[in-house]
Amino acid sequence: MLENVNDKQIKKMTLPQLHALCDEARQKIISTVFKNGGHLSSNLGTVELTVALHYVFDFPEDKVIFDVGHQCYTHKLLSGRYEKFDTIRKKGGLSGFPKREESIYDCYNTGHAGTSVSAALGIAKARDISGQNFNVIVVIGDGSFNNGLIYEAFNSLRLLNTKILVILNDNGMSISPTVGSMHEYLEILSADSEQKAKRDKHAKIFERFGFGYDGVYDGNDLEQMIAKLIEVKERLKTESVILHVLSKKGKGYAFCEENPEATHGISVSGTVKDVSVEYSDVLGNTLETLAEKNEKIVAVTAAMTSSLGLSGFFEKFPERSVDVGICEEHATILCASMATEGLKPFYAVYSTFLQRSFDEILIDICSQNLPVTLCIDRAGISGADGETHQGVFDLSFLSLVPNLTIAVPKDVKEFEAMIHFCAEYNAPIAVRYPREGKRIFGKQSKIVAGKWEKLKDGDSKFAIIACGERPVTIALSAAEMLEKDGINVGVINARFVKPLDTVMLDGLKEKHILTVEDNVLAGGLGSLINSHFAHGGKNIKNFAYGDVFIPQGGVGELMDEYGVSSAAIVEYIKNESR
Amino acid sequence: MLENVNDKQIKKMTLPQLHALCDEARQKIISTVFKNGGHLSSNLGTVELTVALHYVFDFPEDKVIFDVGHQCYTHKLLSGRYEKFDTIRKKGGLSGFPKREESIYDCYNTGHAGTSVSAALGIAKARDISGQNFNVIVVIGDGSFNNGLIYEAFNSLRLLNTKILVILNDNGMSISPTVGSMHEYLEILSADSEQKAKRDKHAKIFERFGFGYDGVYDGNDLEQMIAKLIEVKERLKTESVILHVLSKKGKGYAFCEENPEATHGISVSGTVKDVSVEYSDVLGNTLETLAEKNEKIVAVTAAMTSSLGLSGFFEKFPERSVDVGICEEHATILCASMATEGLKPFYAVYSTFLQRSFDEILIDICSQNLPVTLCIDRAGISGADGETHQGVFDLSFLSLVPNLTIAVPKDVKEFEAMIHFCAEYNAPIAVRYPREGKRIFGKQSKIVAGKWEKLKDGDSKFAIIACGERPVTIALSAAEMLEKDGINVGVINARFVKPLDTVMLDGLKEKHILTVEDNVLAGGLGSLINSHFAHGGKNIKNFAYGDVFIPQGGVGELMDEYGVSSAAIVEYIKNESR
Repeated sequence: MLENVNDKQIKKMTLPQLHALCDEARQKIISTVFKNGGHLSSNLGTVELTVALHYVFDFPEDKVIFDVGHQCYTHKLLSGRYEKFDTIRKKGGLSGFPKREESIYDCYNTGHAGTSVSAALGIAKARDISGQNFNVIVVIGDGSFNNGLIYEAFNSLRLLNTKILVILNDNGMSISPTVGSMHEYLEILSADSEQKAKRDKHAKIFERFGFGYDGVYDGNDLEQMIAKLIEVKERLKTESVILHVLSKKGKGYAFCEENPEATHGISVSGTVKDVSVEYSDVLGNTLETLAEKNEKIVAVTAAMTSSLGLSGFFEKFPERSVDVGICEEHATILCASMATEGLKPFYAVYSTFLQRSFDEILIDICSQNLPVTLCIDRAGISGADGETHQGVFDLSFLSLVPNLTIAVPKDVKEFEAMIHFCAEYNAPIAVRYPREGKRIFGKQSKIVAGKWEKLKDGDSKFAIIACGERPVTIALSAAEMLEKDGINVGVINARFVKPLDTVMLDGLKEKHILTVEDNVLAGGLGSLINSHFAHGGKNIKNFAYGDVFIPQGGVGELMDEYGVSSAAIVEYIKNESR
Repeated sequence: MLENVNDKQIKKMTLPQLHALCDEARQKIISTVFKNGGHLSSNLGTVELTVALHYVFDFPEDKVIFDVGHQCYTHKLLSGRYEKFDTIRKKGGLSGFPKREESIYDCYNTGHAGTSVSAALGIAKARDISGQNFNVIVVIGDGSFNNGLIYEAFNSLRLLNTKILVILNDNGMSISPTVGSMHEYLEILSADSEQKAKRDKHAKIFERFGFGYDGVYDGNDLEQMIAKLIEVKERLKTESVILHVLSKKGKGYAFCEENPEATHGISVSGTVKDVSVEYSDVLGNTLETLAEKNEKIVAVTAAMTSSLGLSGFFEKFPERSVDVGICEEHATILCASMATEGLKPFYAVYSTFLQRSFDEILIDICSQNLPVTLCIDRAGISGADGETHQGVFDLSFLSLVPNLTIAVPKDVKEFEAMIHFCAEYNAPIAVRYPREGKRIFGKQSKIVAGKWEKLKDGDSKFAIIACGERPVTIALSAAEMLEKDGINVGVINARFVKPLDTVMLDGLKEKHILTVEDNVLAGGLGSLINSHFAHGGKNIKNFAYGDVFIPQGGVGELMDEYGVSSAAIVEYIKNESR
């Protein structure tokens, strides 16, 4: 039934048929996610709500925006993408997030938390300005409700004088369990469901911003959802509404229901098998060891304690652990300000989410030259989550920041040493690393600030400078291949991208330099080295990503396609050696 | 009396003496700001509050954080900086913002709105962790209360389980009059001052987040402020408190009281005299002209309508004008989402505040390839406001963004043509410009996407590539000087920093290239050109700012000191010509 279903048919379905549709969607999601990886429990929790939305509203004329977008799978299944659903998160396949390029049923691309209400207001305002008439709906989890963007958007609702529907899909989780006073407040609203009067008093916080509030309802109760949406659709003609629903993350799949944090995102086992160790585990273990002796160390995260490897630290040192929810900017300033009082904060965050606190890194941490360590996980190509989640910009937007040191360890062993180094380092420092550690290199020399490590000498005219595990692996592997052809290439581990090891660089003046990095070229390692040598003229070849957004795919296949590979290096050097 | 005053003496003063102190501080501020420029009305509004703070609390043991920091002048006068006060905003002098480097009475540097509550929480948390005992106080205006950071900080107060005092200094202005529902709410609190019961009900919104609320009081009533602070200091032992005070921006100086927006920041006349036209005026006039014919055009700002030149547009086209208050991220997403519906948004913002929506520029606007125009005012060195306000990073953090075109007009005439060009351009584009237009160049050729303009041919081996009015001025002036020495240097106007005009660049293969820009080197024009030529080897000399935060000073003197000047170019070329 799910195959080829469209909104017209859905609107004619009976309740039992709609229930069957939900079951089918749920099964399809489970089987696909276990094959392709992806967000599981959030999608299972929103099946009924999404079916009800398609039953009541008229897409694509009406617009729905999914906050973060990791709960859009049922929407994709119901909007003509059933057949391609098997390709989700694969190279060239459907995205795991809403994508305008993919379907007219996706009106706004999301990926980072908290943008949906702003986007809905913009679309609704544009509708009003151009004299159109359609509904604009947001589906947003309670985790995103912590983000400051939501407040900025709410604050401007009356000002913009427009109408939207915000469906607050409350499951008590934001990858980690949701924290903060807004969440406590939502819990009060939920707990009071028997006492309408009391609840209505609490709901005033939303009314203050100009929303009508209606809640709390069971988001997994299809019949109730349909009835509520019909009612709210009417109400939308005269005012903006927040519809507060409770849903069960992982609904319909017992293991997910019991383990919502672990099953928020699923990796496919094929990838997992090759992993020797995750950098995040090394971070957690190392920080725990350090924190036992150094009581100044604090750990800060924004709603991702477990995936950043910090669960153990948080258990062991609760008074020195801070998770503020999805509030990257606030978390960054907390680190800066704690450092003014002599503490030693480590802020762990995914590369893609670090982008959100660029201004605070620049102004609060670095212009005050405060000893905060940024632990940047999922740096480089992150793979199947696609454009919005690639960690390929951090070297670029950090290299321009004065006072900041940038370190890129070549493997987990060097990473551990680097964290020890950071604990003693009295200035802002960023350490960037991928998710998986796949190998430990033989050479492990002492870490000295701003100094690189020679991994392999070479008597040819070529020298490769690489930073990070993947690029160093690629460089060494290229060197190995070239050795078979009698070309002996030097390989250098650029542990620090900032400052550059100018002494070692200047020792390479006679060499033809190749740079390799898991980052875009502009502002990255290669670009910094180009500028170092620009005055005087020098032959340099950069291997880095070009000026494009990199779509989803496997890490290896994307690196190959976007030109950062040992094969590309080998080919280049062979050509130049002729 | 103000000279050499310290907190110990202040605590012994009688009320009449304290009043006299206020008067003296106010006079000192007025006379100094009219000499040095700076924030006037905000500082005049907080004299009594600051004197009361110094009377009641024990600085520097207790800590006070001024949000934005533009209202810290009285604090500086009372904390040992009277003698140096004449140097405020001058090169090498006192900063117009709090600076830890300057005094132990400044515990946290501010400059951008909304960071203070986060910073206070971090400092208070650090205090608790290290077992210390002092008070942490925030002074924040109602304008900053619109920013999402405040919500993120409030949301985590209970979670962090610490205690701070937030003094909400409500003057109804955030440069422009404050907008939004939070502001309306604050007005309700203020209006109700006679009806305590009703007011207390309203105050629940703060209590929801764990604050005790006390208000509304007259922030310019010294006696009341002292009494209130004594009371609140006691209350702080058991809970966090918001003290809501109303103050009059520009208090004690009639012209300021009546013109708070115009007197928010004062420029000294010496600077103004040379100005022929402000880029912001050209922006406003051009957009008005365009909007009359093109009904898709909308203008968006974040609390700076007038200083960005958009007051006229807002008056003429209110339905297509959006000012969301100090919410840079929200404003950026509004633009992206309005563009999805076919509108043509122009987002005008100062370069330094654009930093705050880096993630939204990257993800919302550019990864969706939406035709939003970023109008980046006060780009390059902005001068007397110092480190936190220099606009010297935008080329760098924008050049790494795929799909984005970056334009840098050489004068206001080209700027006007560029805005016309943007109105027809169907992709994301950023236009960056300084505040003041000082000259119009003779040559004005048609703007073609990604194409540069040759301003001067040269038969020597040198070619200068410059972007923006100041660098083009410097380049032409250097070329003129060199011509007297018989060295004929070509000068190119790099109207587009992204994409580079690679055809023209490659035509310069035999030349020794010099690049000139009003931006840091990393990621800027020079760096992009270096990378373009890295493969093959080429002699390039970059004139751009180095890897440092640039302090306050005059634009010209800072550009000279940091190496972007015609003198430096002339010297370099002469040396290389020998």
